[in-house]
Amino acid sequence: MNSSSITRPTLLLDEKKCRSNIERMVKKAIDHHLKFRPHFKTHQSADIGNWIKDMGIETCTVSSVKMAEYFAGYNWKDILIAFPVNVLEGEKINELAGKLKLQILVYSAESLRLLNKKMDHSIGVKIELDVGSNRSGLRTNQHKEIDEILKTIEEGPNFHFTGFYSHPGHTYTSRSKEEVLEKYTAILEELDTLKTHYEHTPGFLITIGDTPGCTLADDFGHVNEISPGNFVFYDVMQVDIGSCTYDDIAVVMACPVVGKNKDRNELLIHGGAVHFSKEQLTDSDGTSHFGKIAIPKECGWDSCVPEAYLKSVSQEHGLVHATQEMLEKIRIGDLLYVFPAHSCLSADLMKSYLTTEEIKMDSASAFMS
Amino acid sequence: MNSSSITRPTLLLDEKKCRSNIERMVKKAIDHHLKFRPHFKTHQSADIGNWIKDMGIETCTVSSVKMAEYFAGYNWKDILIAFPVNVLEGEKINELAGKLKLQILVYSAESLRLLNKKMDHSIGVKIELDVGSNRSGLRTNQHKEIDEILKTIEEGPNFHFTGFYSHPGHTYTSRSKEEVLEKYTAILEELDTLKTHYEHTPGFLITIGDTPGCTLADDFGHVNEISPGNFVFYDVMQVDIGSCTYDDIAVVMACPVVGKNKDRNELLIHGGAVHFSKEQLTDSDGTSHFGKIAIPKECGWDSCVPEAYLKSVSQEHGLVHATQEMLEKIRIGDLLYVFPAHSCLSADLMKSYLTTEEIKMDSASAFMS
Repeated sequence: MNSSSITRPTLLLDEKKCRSNIERMVKKAIDHHLKFRPHFKTHQSADIGNWIKDMGIETCTVSSVKMAEYFAGYNWKDILIAFPVNVLEGEKINELAGKLKLQILVYSAESLRLLNKKMDHSIGVKIELDVGSNRSGLRTNQHKEIDEILKTIEEGPNFHFTGFYSHPGHTYTSRSKEEVLEKYTAILEELDTLKTHYEHTPGFLITIGDTPGCTLADDFGHVNEISPGNFVFYDVMQVDIGSCTYDDIAVVMACPVVGKNKDRNELLIHGGAVHFSKEQLTDSDGTSHFGKIAIPKECGWDSCVPEAYLKSVSQEHGLVHATQEMLEKIRIGDLLYVFPAHSCLSADLMKSYLTTEEIKMDSASAFMS
Repeated sequence: MNSSSITRPTLLLDEKKCRSNIERMVKKAIDHHLKFRPHFKTHQSADIGNWIKDMGIETCTVSSVKMAEYFAGYNWKDILIAFPVNVLEGEKINELAGKLKLQILVYSAESLRLLNKKMDHSIGVKIELDVGSNRSGLRTNQHKEIDEILKTIEEGPNFHFTGFYSHPGHTYTSRSKEEVLEKYTAILEELDTLKTHYEHTPGFLITIGDTPGCTLADDFGHVNEISPGNFVFYDVMQVDIGSCTYDDIAVVMACPVVGKNKDRNELLIHGGAVHFSKEQLTDSDGTSHFGKIAIPKECGWDSCVPEAYLKSVSQEHGLVHATQEMLEKIRIGDLLYVFPAHSCLSADLMKSYLTTEEIKMDSASAFMS
């Protein structure tokens, strides 16, 4: 690509890699007879939404009411807000529910009772399950609490039960495919027991949504639907987990080189916490970093420079631990391509993409404050 | 304040606390005969800029060309871009230099030679010094490199030397006033030696710009100008350093409570990495956290709940380690006020403020991608 148009930190998107990641996950869902409701919190992009629509997908997942409003504006008519319902946004949720097929997530009857007062449109309710991540949701054996929610759904004239949802976030701490699959075995066992317990409850789906598991697992047990998000881009974290290789990562941050400290083997770039966030990863040798360095090629980038990494970030500054070759070849005013540690946070911060074809694409976060 | 208008994560700003922080730092500069060029990267707000202007300040510091453009649009006519010059933005820098009194930062003659080709307006050049933070800048004893820059400034018809600039970022790892002052003693010694070495170079200033030092020091040696940024808000990091108390912190994130996990003493809030970034602090007892909990009062907030903290953040979720009292009193649908670990990053992410008087104020980051 002709990078002469780039003068400041810019999130580059390789459409081909991204479409190929999407295609692979769509195929996986089809092969395993799973419904596919991709999570849009990673890309937050109407255009990438369209690439997903090109593959025949009409359902999506978002992480906030604002994001649901954004995608509703781009003709998405079947949306799950996969965040424990924020009752303070009841009016907006009701308004959205009047326009499209909306589902929300709950894990307490109290939330649902509070929401009920604000609803006069039909809305699907999923019960959130905690299958090991210890973040949010009920454990699969909390039948009393689950039953109370089911009862509240029945009582609320506008609620209907659509299933159980779980984000097994604990797969993200895995460092091998085997470790992810081991966790998945335990998760699927739990979900199977749950499915048996609620077999007389009609017509519900079990949805699961983490990129490591959805990428690596081949057995989905009684799961009916998957909703991964990160897979559209992947990132260094997913490489560390074993979900992908560097060749699959569809975004890099192009960062202007503004300084060199040869004594310390460092390049200084414009690219800091306001571009990468402060997601920090630790390599197996104990090295902490905020991203890895990609090798630029004519139209995009190749795999990564094994020994180099983004060693620290402050608000706008990034310090790169560079190889001797990089220190010799790279000059002030060049662009350095950095694979983000966590692409979801970089995408949210950057608010837009520049494709390797030099097309600028906005994202929802540009319109949310 | 009537918080019924708040339905989602919102950065609340206490104008009184903020103006009082500004007033204190202005007074400090006056008392120590220092010029004051506050860093606007923390607040990025035209309105807060005006509060500073109300105190008679007409000079400011920013961290990017985009931010300089933003404040130029609000009639700031004397701006220092305190980031090692990004030569790819040469045209924009030249354009700005044609409109106002602009200064840039360099620490290599190479940057300056590259920039020279793009300049036809007069611009002030400060040489960046590394006085111990190991991030960017030349060491004070790198006379050869400093002299080469001074020579390049002389040669460039549009450059004029305005001084030395340093951000002693290593004061941020201090955990007491004594530790900050000890570092400052070493810094001032270095700067004194530098000042003596360059005593025949006419009319330059020495500028220093970190909130811990500018807040806590009483001796500024040969420093002529200060440019702290964070002091307008302060945050938990600054409390840990000893720069301020919780009562001085001028911003909190109001976060809707969306769940409770009594067994784990946790509250789940809407407030995650896209609101707080992932700046993590460690208490003296080893507890890691992303923020502390403020006690709400009618118009704003009081000090913090000592035992509670924001223990983890994912993209939109925040898990709060809560006290028994909080677990009993706080209900789903309430707002929890969180002091951010690092207010600069939260302000950048949130793109706007709501004052405790319920006035919405935008910030530059809403317009930058």
